Amino acid sequence: MAKTIAVNAGSSSLKWQLYSMPEEVVIAKGIVERIGLNDSIFTIKYGDGQKFELVQDIENHEVAIHMLLEQLIKLNIIDKLEEITGAGHRIVAGGEHFKVSTIIDDAALKLVDDLAEFAPLHNPAEATVIRVFQKLLPETLNVGVFDTSFHTSMPAVNYLYSLPKQYYNDFAARKYGAHGTSHRYVSERAAELLGKPIEETKIITCHLGNGASITAVDGGKSIDTSMGFTPLAGLTMGTRSGDIDPSILPYLMDKLGLTDIKDMINILNKESGLLGISGVSSDMRDLLEASEENPDAGLAIEIFEDRVRKYIGSYIATMNGVDAIVFTAGIGENDADMRRNVINGLTWLGCDIDESKNNVRGEETVLSTENAKVKVFLIPTDEELMIARDVEALKK
Amino acid sequence: MAKTIAVNAGSSSLKWQLYSMPEEVVIAKGIVERIGLNDSIFTIKYGDGQKFELVQDIENHEVAIHMLLEQLIKLNIIDKLEEITGAGHRIVAGGEHFKVSTIIDDAALKLVDDLAEFAPLHNPAEATVIRVFQKLLPETLNVGVFDTSFHTSMPAVNYLYSLPKQYYNDFAARKYGAHGTSHRYVSERAAELLGKPIEETKIITCHLGNGASITAVDGGKSIDTSMGFTPLAGLTMGTRSGDIDPSILPYLMDKLGLTDIKDMINILNKESGLLGISGVSSDMRDLLEASEENPDAGLAIEIFEDRVRKYIGSYIATMNGVDAIVFTAGIGENDADMRRNVINGLTWLGCDIDESKNNVRGEETVLSTENAKVKVFLIPTDEELMIARDVEALKK
Repeated sequence: MAKTIAVNAGSSSLKWQLYSMPEEVVIAKGIVERIGLNDSIFTIKYGDGQKFELVQDIENHEVAIHMLLEQLIKLNIIDKLEEITGAGHRIVAGGEHFKVSTIIDDAALKLVDDLAEFAPLHNPAEATVIRVFQKLLPETLNVGVFDTSFHTSMPAVNYLYSLPKQYYNDFAARKYGAHGTSHRYVSERAAELLGKPIEETKIITCHLGNGASITAVDGGKSIDTSMGFTPLAGLTMGTRSGDIDPSILPYLMDKLGLTDIKDMINILNKESGLLGISGVSSDMRDLLEASEENPDAGLAIEIFEDRVRKYIGSYIATMNGVDAIVFTAGIGENDADMRRNVINGLTWLGCDIDESKNNVRGEETVLSTENAKVKVFLIPTDEELMIARDVEALKK
Repeated sequence: MAKTIAVNAGSSSLKWQLYSMPEEVVIAKGIVERIGLNDSIFTIKYGDGQKFELVQDIENHEVAIHMLLEQLIKLNIIDKLEEITGAGHRIVAGGEHFKVSTIIDDAALKLVDDLAEFAPLHNPAEATVIRVFQKLLPETLNVGVFDTSFHTSMPAVNYLYSLPKQYYNDFAARKYGAHGTSHRYVSERAAELLGKPIEETKIITCHLGNGASITAVDGGKSIDTSMGFTPLAGLTMGTRSGDIDPSILPYLMDKLGLTDIKDMINILNKESGLLGISGVSSDMRDLLEASEENPDAGLAIEIFEDRVRKYIGSYIATMNGVDAIVFTAGIGENDADMRRNVINGLTWLGCDIDESKNNVRGEETVLSTENAKVKVFLIPTDEELMIARDVEALKK
């Protein structure tokens, strides 16, 4: 039986999910953490809730993948490696080149390397993993599924910054966005729920997790998204500042005695957002708990919700309308309070939440009342399935 | 007869307008340019279109004001200096302290000096001018009218950045906004046009000039505004970038070989915006003319209009509604194409422009059709009159 593995490689981790295709059945999934560090953790979940775990030093991605393939056979998840006919690799930066998921040959792999400048922690790890697959599974089709592809449909009016135009021409400095696979997946599903051809829909997809972005999907195409040149921009996130007056950087660097802007950007990426405002945690659940005693925790939640509302409003304006708003990802799927607070601030725009339906976690649900002008959906995202589908489509 | 002078001092300029109060009649106005440089230009307009102009070196603001007072008498605009019972001074940075227009005594003047950190080109010049007035017109009431005061009503959820909270506590790093006097003036006038107590209105004021900002005015109070810690943030402007992913700064500095972030911020302030995108001009009129041959000029206009639309949408979301949208300032009052293009993208939100009324420049006009859900107004701003009124109110 033909199987496809969806692979999501980070600098020190490897998440994967093995599908039987075209049935779209998950037959096993797992994660390798702390690759290159001591006491790496290797986990597989398979069958009816069975779990395999191993803690040992795993020195690099090649060793990790070698172990994985070995265990898949040992645990009788597959009979032989040749069953894995396709591997889909999530790649963070696809630049302007990769407009759709693409078979990774040597030329494409070189481009993935070249784009490392836009995702220095991710693209090199992903290129390494593809090389290991080429070596260990020479017959398997490798497909790159890029976080940025869905957003390559953005028009210049939205992807260009108001900078000297030659910075775009010479250095490709522009908005690229992220979470494209997720925005694509939930927008396609939302069109199905609307019962309309996606070409006739205007959908705003809110991928709200520790990293968070909102996309305006007009006629099935991303026309704008809140993340920018990097995933730092846009919404208030777990530890990221999102949008900010750039002039505040030199002011704070002066106050903090910093001379290298990279140190300042590091603070904006890792010590800001919900964590920075609250001083407590980057996690919405912790903040809700802390908010009774710590007003800053409550303020962090309010700021998060306000920024979500504002992006929704701005994308309604830029599309001149909206049919549906989708909540997805960790916070979007699980935080009913956040969803209620956001939507209750958008009643003038035609949103109306059905409180009796909103008290749900991670289950596809129509959250809006029957007569609401704008539909509101909870749609659990499934980037891995989207990756497997893209591989399947390219297997032919 | 009691007269009040409204003064707007820049680092090398001095604009002023002399009112007969409380009749609110302008009896003369003028500008001194190139103060401290060669060939300074000193201009007065008065009476029925009479004009007085002098070109000579004017070494500093004290000399400029001395000349001004002398000429006001020589030209028979006033009989004696004591007639000028009030002087209202526009001050750029009022920080969190100056929540309303304030009589400037020594303590207040020291605070204006202290706030120079937030407006290094403006506050020192303004403090200097107030000191000259204290010396030359010792009996005149000096009042500070702050660009930021109107925005001090913003709630923390909107003035806080998603940064470590101690940067606000320790360094007052927050959103301050600008153009407050203009946003206040046109929002008050818009409430009159709506025929409602301002407390019951939701108004979005678009002050669109070479510098541009949009404010959400809820119940007569600014609750959010597009400019931030400095006037660099928010909309695409003549030469300013507005909002941008801060991560693009180190990337560009690396490409451009810059090591000091201040050089990068200088580019964002002076070489970006409409000028940067088009490569042609920071002026919307020039861009319209150039757009037939230069697609980047057209793109710059489209980006400007798109960002205006997005801020309007985001502020409708944050207020959960809007009664009126106001266009004011140079571009807002004079660029009928821009107004039409912006409003035609907001029809889903209840806007509807009356084309037969929109072809107007600088005249108060209801631009929306009679049955439009959201009213759209052109209201010429008059910051000088607002300043004179604030002085009058404090004369008692």
